[in-house]
Amino acid sequence: MMDGFKALGLAVPLVQAPMAGTSTPALAAAVSNAGALGSIALGAVDAQAGREMIEATRALTDRPFNVNLFTHRPACPDPQRETDWLAWLAPEFARFGAGAPASLRPIYRSFVEDEAMLAMLVETAPAVVSFHFGLPGAVAISALKQRGCLLLATATSPAEARAIEQAGIDIIVAQGIEAGGHRGMFDPGAPDAALGLMALIRLILRETSLPVIAAGGIMDGAGMAAVLDLGAVAAQMGTAFIDCPESAADAAYRAALRGPAATQTIMTDAISGRPARALANRFTALAQTMGARRPPDYPIAYDAGKALHAAAKASGVHGYGAQWAGQGAPLARAMPAADLVAVLAEELRAVRG
Amino acid sequence: MMDGFKALGLAVPLVQAPMAGTSTPALAAAVSNAGALGSIALGAVDAQAGREMIEATRALTDRPFNVNLFTHRPACPDPQRETDWLAWLAPEFARFGAGAPASLRPIYRSFVEDEAMLAMLVETAPAVVSFHFGLPGAVAISALKQRGCLLLATATSPAEARAIEQAGIDIIVAQGIEAGGHRGMFDPGAPDAALGLMALIRLILRETSLPVIAAGGIMDGAGMAAVLDLGAVAAQMGTAFIDCPESAADAAYRAALRGPAATQTIMTDAISGRPARALANRFTALAQTMGARRPPDYPIAYDAGKALHAAAKASGVHGYGAQWAGQGAPLARAMPAADLVAVLAEELRAVRG
Repeated sequence: MMDGFKALGLAVPLVQAPMAGTSTPALAAAVSNAGALGSIALGAVDAQAGREMIEATRALTDRPFNVNLFTHRPACPDPQRETDWLAWLAPEFARFGAGAPASLRPIYRSFVEDEAMLAMLVETAPAVVSFHFGLPGAVAISALKQRGCLLLATATSPAEARAIEQAGIDIIVAQGIEAGGHRGMFDPGAPDAALGLMALIRLILRETSLPVIAAGGIMDGAGMAAVLDLGAVAAQMGTAFIDCPESAADAAYRAALRGPAATQTIMTDAISGRPARALANRFTALAQTMGARRPPDYPIAYDAGKALHAAAKASGVHGYGAQWAGQGAPLARAMPAADLVAVLAEELRAVRG
Repeated sequence: MMDGFKALGLAVPLVQAPMAGTSTPALAAAVSNAGALGSIALGAVDAQAGREMIEATRALTDRPFNVNLFTHRPACPDPQRETDWLAWLAPEFARFGAGAPASLRPIYRSFVEDEAMLAMLVETAPAVVSFHFGLPGAVAISALKQRGCLLLATATSPAEARAIEQAGIDIIVAQGIEAGGHRGMFDPGAPDAALGLMALIRLILRETSLPVIAAGGIMDGAGMAAVLDLGAVAAQMGTAFIDCPESAADAAYRAALRGPAATQTIMTDAISGRPARALANRFTALAQTMGARRPPDYPIAYDAGKALHAAAKASGVHGYGAQWAGQGAPLARAMPAADLVAVLAEELRAVRG
């Protein structure tokens, strides 16, 4: 079972996390060229743009890289909930002299219903394909495996890990509650034990025989060593790469990451419609006033969130961005991705001797 | 700074967590005799009973052990809030043919106002004294240090760790969000970043020069190795010891720990008045219906919680106990404490080679 992972031939047991909107082909290629596994995120793009990202990455590296897809249950439009949500957000838009959108739409298509994306992936056959928010259908899994793709899927619980194994996926990405960005839970309406990485890895390894890549709160070689001791085959790190020059993070996001907001990350579903961990900002503060209100389904709520961010930004206010980050955010370092991979590898060696 | 910890001469870098109501002199002595550091918890007893627990432990071991105190801000009685809380709980009492108590009181005295306890500790001078829920006053710290006690205090955040260092405490117990039982935050009303252990250790070590003992979600030698890699000097484990024969856990608690409730622990302040992580049971289910209601201050709410548990138990219903446990609960093993320490030491050796 470990062979598929070993066949990647990574010099450093490290995956740069896919981060839709922040990771780039340049970042993924730099990481892969440095001996780890880079990732690009196709969750927010269509098949054509996804193809271009794969081609752009291949133009920069001959090494394997990971292509990430969002496999959420397609959103159920609910006009009343959306109207209520927009009415609640309207005063925020008004602060910036803007009106709330008249209606909202699911701005991203789930991979589970995107046949063009599947066809593109079968054609381009990336070395690694990963899924977040659930599992694709059996046809997609079978088609990608036949093309030699190594398949990864995120689990936030032992139950999700079992489902991943039963579906024939090759590797589990165990995502602890510490992790930045979207929590990969299959069903955001189900109870969440909110497992920290320390317990999650051990609980998953007890129940499945698949290799596990560990994600959440890992920022340095000591954290990498820790998850390897816990039985993971590699560490996945996202927040650590946000401030690399190759990332697409804007200046406001980088400034927030370097400032006091990094010490207080917040898990909220108000920005996108699904729980995600972000740097404390004006949007997370707003989210804490939502009470029992429920946002529209992901990614319908994200349509409103992005509109609010755009309206604020047009007034020079940057506090409504989706500034995703994990709990280790204050430990992020600003350096080229290749240098960061080299530093991490050296730190790992120093700990493991 | 590490010397005080090293002087304990532990053969195994392991602390058995103090667990008021569950840990016992027999458990602490067995752990200390096996080469780790056992702990007794005096948070729920007065000075005389505390003295007896120290003497009982000393009768069973010549090795150092840890004596734990609760240093919460003394409860502020609030008759209206207490009346409202009892009114809310009344239907639960009624299920068991019982009435809710007519009034509530702070059932435990905080160490910060317990001069008899301080005098007893100064006299008996335990090798290690630890504090949970905040810091004792400077007089107490100074008096205990003069008697040669090694002092520990719990931190759930880098800010608390800094306060611990500034107060002259010797060692920080870094408690991740995964941990069972009471969360040691100094101020339960302040925002809580809910840091997982993976990030917490690294964030604390960046800001203080004190040694760190790591607590939360650690259940085996792999977890111990992980926290040592993260820079801790030892792992503190509580849930792992609940099902030892030397613990005071009752049959219902042990059965719950071995059953499906272990996979879904819940952090709630409804049982005691302070956030604590427990196995999912009838009390945690009730807590999830409390909405914006706030329980009385710790430990006033605990008076009600214990009365409800007693009323239910009298009817043969055990689901209202304070069945504290951490996120690694399903990994608990039922074996004598000395055997568990030996197994953990062997697992640690196997991981670290």
